[in-house]
Amino acid sequence: MRIGTVYLVGAGPGAPDLLTLRAARLLASADIVFHDALVHPGTLQLAPDAELVAVGKRCGQLSAAQRFINKRLIDAARHHRIVVRLKGGDPMLFGRAQEEIDALREAGVPFAIVPGVTAALAASSELRTSLTRRATSGDAGSRSVVFVTPRVAASGMVDGSWVDAVNAADTAVLYMASREAATIARALIADGRAASTPVAIVENASLPDASTRGTTLGDLARDGLEALRGPATLIVGTVMDGLLRQESEQARCRVA
Amino acid sequence: MRIGTVYLVGAGPGAPDLLTLRAARLLASADIVFHDALVHPGTLQLAPDAELVAVGKRCGQLSAAQRFINKRLIDAARHHRIVVRLKGGDPMLFGRAQEEIDALREAGVPFAIVPGVTAALAASSELRTSLTRRATSGDAGSRSVVFVTPRVAASGMVDGSWVDAVNAADTAVLYMASREAATIARALIADGRAASTPVAIVENASLPDASTRGTTLGDLARDGLEALRGPATLIVGTVMDGLLRQESEQARCRVA
Repeated sequence: MRIGTVYLVGAGPGAPDLLTLRAARLLASADIVFHDALVHPGTLQLAPDAELVAVGKRCGQLSAAQRFINKRLIDAARHHRIVVRLKGGDPMLFGRAQEEIDALREAGVPFAIVPGVTAALAASSELRTSLTRRATSGDAGSRSVVFVTPRVAASGMVDGSWVDAVNAADTAVLYMASREAATIARALIADGRAASTPVAIVENASLPDASTRGTTLGDLARDGLEALRGPATLIVGTVMDGLLRQESEQARCRVA
Repeated sequence: MRIGTVYLVGAGPGAPDLLTLRAARLLASADIVFHDALVHPGTLQLAPDAELVAVGKRCGQLSAAQRFINKRLIDAARHHRIVVRLKGGDPMLFGRAQEEIDALREAGVPFAIVPGVTAALAASSELRTSLTRRATSGDAGSRSVVFVTPRVAASGMVDGSWVDAVNAADTAVLYMASREAATIARALIADGRAASTPVAIVENASLPDASTRGTTLGDLARDGLEALRGPATLIVGTVMDGLLRQESEQARCRVA
C-alpha cells in the first residue's frame, strides 16, 4: 500500500497573501485539507481541487477532538498522496502540533512541517512598532521577547509560571489573553511590573478590519477589555511607549 | 514631487519559497531593493526588474551604517515608486526596523511592514519539534517561548537581563548565540537552570544543507560549539527532550 505525506502547514496570521509560497504550492496540489475553523476563506480558495475539512476549535479544544484529528490525518495518508493540515499562524507555536507529530510518527506516516507567520509578528507590523529595540542613552531597549498563553483557572486564580516569564522579558506578546485581560494585568502588577507599562491591543491583525489601540497595565487591570470582535494579541512592554505617545497627541489635536 | 512607499519586508528564514505571497508580489514590482547581506540569491531573483543594493551586516553592524541605510531609504523614496527593504526573517524581531521606521516617519515617507517567518520557527520545523507543548501527567509542558539575543561583553562578562528572561520561560530560542555558546550556557546554569536541560542547535534552517543536533546545557558549557558553517539558532528547554532521546537511540543502533 502506498502512503501519502502529511504536511503541517502554517496558514499565517489571517490575510491569505501572508501565506508562504511553499504553503500556497502545497495547497494547490493537496488532495485533502484539514483546517482550523479560523482559517480565512481566501486561503482555502488556494486549494481548489482539495476536499476541505474543518477541524478543531481555536479555544477550549477537547483532547478527545485532538485524538480524532490525529486519527483522521493518519487515515487520510492511507488514501491520499498530499494531505495538508492547515493551522492558523505557525504550526509550532501554540498549535498542538506536537500531538499530531507524535501520532504520525508512531503510525509511520511521512510528514513535513511548513512554518508560517505567527500572529505576534503580524500584530507588530500592524502597530508599525518593532518588538525589539536597541538600547540608547535614554532607553534600555528590548533584547528579549516572550510569547505566552497565560493560564487563568476558572476560579480566577492565576495558575503557572507564565507571570515570571512575562515579567522577566523586555517585551511580552500574550496570545489568547483578551477574555482574562484584567486578571492577567493584575497578576503582572502584583508580581512587580509597573502599572504604567504600555500595552498594545491588536485585533484581527493583517485583516482589513484590523484595529490597534494602546493602554497601560494599570488601566487594563481596572477596566479589562470590552468585548472584542476577533482574535486579539496583547503586547506588553516599553517598546510600545511610542504608541501611547501618538494616541495622546491625537487626543490633544482632537480637543484643540 | 511624488514620493514612493518604502516596504520593510521579511525575507523569511532562508529558503526562497518561505517568503510570503505578499513579499513576492512586492519584489516582482519593486523599483529598488535594499537587502541584508545574508538574503538568499534565489529570493533576490524574485525581483528581476529592481536595482539590488546589499546593505548592512548581520552581526556587529555599526550605527553609522544604520544611519546611512536610513538616509538611502528616504532618498530612494524620492526617486522610486516601490522601494523594498528586505530583511532576513521577520523585520520586527532583531531586525533594527525601529530605527528605519523612526527615520521614515520623521522624513514623512509613507511606509508599510510585511511580516515574515522568523528563524526560530524554521528551526522548530527543521527539528520537527514544537516550541510549545501541552502539559500531561508526566510533563509540565511549555506555554512560554522567549526569543533572545544574549549579550556577552568583550570581557566575557554576561551583560544584561537576558539570563532571567531565558530561565523564566519554558522554552528559549537564542539568536546570534553560537560564538559565545559556552559562556551563555555557564551563565544559565549559574542562574539555576539544570545542566541536564536539552539544547537543540539548528544551522541553516530551511536550506538544503540544514543540520540539527542535540546536546545539554552542561555539555555546551564545557565544550562550546565548534565552528559553524552558517547562521545558527539554539533552542533551550525540555520540549527538546525527544531530540536527545532519538539521538541516543541512533547512537545505540550504530554501536549494536
